[in-house]
Amino acid sequence: MDINGLQEEIATFALERDWEKFHTVKNLVLALLGEAGELASVVQWLEKVDKEFLDSNTEVRQDLADELADVFIYLIRIADVSGIDILKAAQEKMQKNSDRYTVEKSFGNAEKQ
Amino acid sequence: MDINGLQEEIATFALERDWEKFHTVKNLVLALLGEAGELASVVQWLEKVDKEFLDSNTEVRQDLADELADVFIYLIRIADVSGIDILKAAQEKMQKNSDRYTVEKSFGNAEKQ
Amino acid sequence: MDINGLQEEIATFALERDWEKFHTVKNLVLALLGEAGELASVVQWLEKVDKEFLDSNTEVRQDLADELADVFIYLIRIADVSGIDILKAAQEKMQKNSDRYTVEKSFGNAEKQ
Amino acid sequence: MDINGLQEEIATFALERDWEKFHTVKNLVLALLGEAGELASVVQWLEKVDKEFLDSNTEVRQDLADELADVFIYLIRIADVSGIDILKAAQEKMQKNSDRYTVEKSFGNAEKQ
Repeated sequence: MDINGLQEEIATFALERDWEKFHTVKNLVLALLGEAGELASVVQWLEKVDKEFLDSNTEVRQDLADELADVFIYLIRIADVSGIDILKAAQEKMQKNSDRYTVEKSFGNAEKQ
Repeated sequence: MDINGLQEEIATFALERDWEKFHTVKNLVLALLGEAGELASVVQWLEKVDKEFLDSNTEVRQDLADELADVFIYLIRIADVSGIDILKAAQEKMQKNSDRYTVEKSFGNAEKQ
Repeated sequence: MDINGLQEEIATFALERDWEKFHTVKNLVLALLGEAGELASVVQWLEKVDKEFLDSNTEVRQDLADELADVFIYLIRIADVSGIDILKAAQEKMQKNSDRYTVEKSFGNAEKQ
Repeated sequence: MDINGLQEEIATFALERDWEKFHTVKNLVLALLGEAGELASVVQWLEKVDKEFLDSNTEVRQDLADELADVFIYLIRIADVSGIDILKAAQEKMQKNSDRYTVEKSFGNAEKQ
């Protein structure tokens, strides 16, 4: 399945439950932030979270995967109800980032330009 | 471009700028929340944000698209450095949601089960 | 009890549980965002949340109070471990806001100046 | 000034600018999350943020203070428009935390009970 298939599945899920009335952009942004907060909760007290740690703590990786998925699902849903092509938006943003954070100016430092 | 191509582009972007050292999972979660906060800022004082409103306020749609893109980029990056397949995680989460929020129990109400 | 008393109570709570090692500024910011996300979850699907609604839905007001309290507790804790006087910071910020959003320019519109 | 004085100052600020119409609970929660996101942005790429670091990087402490203040201001405003006594709510929450995370069970570990 690709991102368009997922978007369609999410839309059908909402439609079947008569949830479209809840899915205003503002409500969905609140929901995304709720899930992003759960993502923060997964890692908040952990000392170091990298692939090595996650290889030995697979339940944390699963928690991370679940919360990333929840954020992703609301992200796709917001894009859908707003008439935004999220893949295209991301590519355009990467181009803007490329212009703003040139390798020359930004090598080794992540400060806002 | 699909989501894997985007993931690769983001990884190359970080590598070229020597930003991998900043991209720990915890730092990236903070960055995602920063961008999700900007998403909230776009809609916070608007009365109603739907397709009709966005058709007449295309600069708001562009702001939304930019902020959704920023959240998406960090989401993909976190999945990458954590060794998580985000599309697979989302499909599994949709399956869990489907089991948890059956049409029968959840029709017309979005309460947590 | 005032805000200083509360700050002291929170510090003692952490000390007694040997939680100071978890309470780095970055970890606490993640924790605050987790609680702010729960605050978002309380209101995300509700149509209108005002005093009248909350008078008839006292369990929602209690949920709101609990989540606001959690955000507040982490806010005070971050200020404490960072050596920041939160009441003074808020007063200074109100002064900056007053200069930036003059009544003349901002009457009836909340746009960023 | 204490927290009640601050609450009153914030209410007057909104009233004078005719901003009460924007200050629904849901809008204010979005605004709080926007500011909490800015708080995350301040620390996201920093390696270690503690008193020692902040003593040598006073501009970071000022940024932190400003963002904490913004979160605090919206927190107080939400409490006000919701009819919630934030200090009382925090004290009650500390009592619940005390019951839930006893020193015996929680010494040295911050896991949810």
